[in-house]
Amino acid sequence: MYIGIDLGGTNIAAGVVDENGRIVCKGSVPTIKERHYSEIIRDMAELAKKLAADAGYGIDDIEAVGIGCPGTVDNSRGMVVYANNIKMDHVPLADEFRKYIDAPVNIENDANAAAYGEYIANGNGAESYIFMTLGTGVGGGIIINGKIYRGFNCAGAEIGHSSIVLDGKTCTCGKKGCLECYASVTALIEQTGEKMKEHPDSMMNEWVKKHGKISGRTAFECAKAGDKAAREVKAQYIRYVAEGVSNMINIFQPEMFVIGGGISKEGDELLVPIKKFVYENDYNKYMPKTEIKIAELFNDAGIVGAAMAAVNRA
Amino acid sequence: MYIGIDLGGTNIAAGVVDENGRIVCKGSVPTIKERHYSEIIRDMAELAKKLAADAGYGIDDIEAVGIGCPGTVDNSRGMVVYANNIKMDHVPLADEFRKYIDAPVNIENDANAAAYGEYIANGNGAESYIFMTLGTGVGGGIIINGKIYRGFNCAGAEIGHSSIVLDGKTCTCGKKGCLECYASVTALIEQTGEKMKEHPDSMMNEWVKKHGKISGRTAFECAKAGDKAAREVKAQYIRYVAEGVSNMINIFQPEMFVIGGGISKEGDELLVPIKKFVYENDYNKYMPKTEIKIAELFNDAGIVGAAMAAVNRA
Repeated sequence: MYIGIDLGGTNIAAGVVDENGRIVCKGSVPTIKERHYSEIIRDMAELAKKLAADAGYGIDDIEAVGIGCPGTVDNSRGMVVYANNIKMDHVPLADEFRKYIDAPVNIENDANAAAYGEYIANGNGAESYIFMTLGTGVGGGIIINGKIYRGFNCAGAEIGHSSIVLDGKTCTCGKKGCLECYASVTALIEQTGEKMKEHPDSMMNEWVKKHGKISGRTAFECAKAGDKAAREVKAQYIRYVAEGVSNMINIFQPEMFVIGGGISKEGDELLVPIKKFVYENDYNKYMPKTEIKIAELFNDAGIVGAAMAAVNRA
Repeated sequence: MYIGIDLGGTNIAAGVVDENGRIVCKGSVPTIKERHYSEIIRDMAELAKKLAADAGYGIDDIEAVGIGCPGTVDNSRGMVVYANNIKMDHVPLADEFRKYIDAPVNIENDANAAAYGEYIANGNGAESYIFMTLGTGVGGGIIINGKIYRGFNCAGAEIGHSSIVLDGKTCTCGKKGCLECYASVTALIEQTGEKMKEHPDSMMNEWVKKHGKISGRTAFECAKAGDKAAREVKAQYIRYVAEGVSNMINIFQPEMFVIGGGISKEGDELLVPIKKFVYENDYNKYMPKTEIKIAELFNDAGIVGAAMAAVNRA
């Protein structure tokens, strides 16, 4: 059996994963990201051992370990080159981890791991597959012929940092007009807040009073209840997301395109208008069309993908 | 030896290509695109036989034939699915061609063929390689691990049809704001014409009187001679191209990115400011950078790429 670990800024989530990519047992511990990396790695290994024991396995039964990490990850050297939010700078994570568990360890960028997990779960072996996750940022992963596409330097697949608005908003990455500035949930919350100010009579203001804060659900729920301003926010946000999806489809013509992240739980409310825009704007007029759908694994994708990337050397 | 054919709307260009991708001898005949496709294919085969004879070979020495075609090409079935400008609709080009020359025939989209030709000539075996051609439109090709990336339906790599301006100019493809509407030579000519009207005293007006029409060179040459309006056109055009290059680099982090097409003959005048913008806006801050350079083969790229794609089954 295999261990998949999703190292996040808040929690270390891990699972025992079987050869079909199914989670047998899972758990998590706090990352406490301010600590020295050696303590974080020790806790990752302890969690892995505990979960293996919970599932009835010994440490020698662990055939491979996969770890998904934020930031810039050098997959070939098993190194976290730089991760701002867990304060890792050139940390030889694979080697450090092997001090605790002597098994092959594969390190993957967290977005790539999540993409691969979704691909294993719902990709149907697609020849080309793109996963876009709409969360705090806009992340992504590209799977070609069953392999994670990383670029020559392991820094590729940053689909949230292609621009859709020339000289638009300044992104955290320094570039202007990135898809992430318009299509992330962070951006949706901003867009919702702006519209609420313009329309103090909008139902969204009451919603926020009731729920304590603006969230990615505010506009979607108030739109469903018939609020005009909320419908405008929702339509404009979907237009931004669809622009990004459409661009990626004209570039890749992947067999499958999957949308994940918290907002993807809106399901058809999000998917149907995106599909409409994308198919209408598809450069490809004569060949079969990309299948566009919503992710299925959500938070488990990183655990499954990290483990299976280690197994399959994807 | 191998035959490479570049089927264009105006001319059929072809060459005898050796195993290293070098053109031994080449020639062309008019396409006369209004004709029935069977006549065009007959002329393609006759040109191939003539060039083989010119190079001292018999028809049996032809080990493989590669044909680059405009439009939507189904590489797996050897079919031109649809090509507007040569009026081909579901033409089984490979089978038809084999009626004249009995050798393996590979059909490739013309932009993919050109990309592969440049890759063979100057790609140094890059693990990932993107070619962007700035001409009447903005075309491109993506080479990953030595293989042409086509998408699952052979309609991929349309990098000119990713948008850079949300709700921008309407593209010939129907989508709004495509890179092609801003970074093609057609767009540069439009941008030059608009600026000339705004600035009747600009040197560009004299240049056009002298040369008979606006071209892609107008702004570049007048900028070099110190004309302020021309400098503005050139800077804005380069900004558009650089936005497209930057987007593709954040998505792919390819080992090499090559810019071709007529305007690429401007060399460093184009390349230096593009590199500056792209490296400043690169999401990748910690890993090696993509090498960005100008194409080398120009018009021969399609012939070389078509032939070598047939040889290497790329």
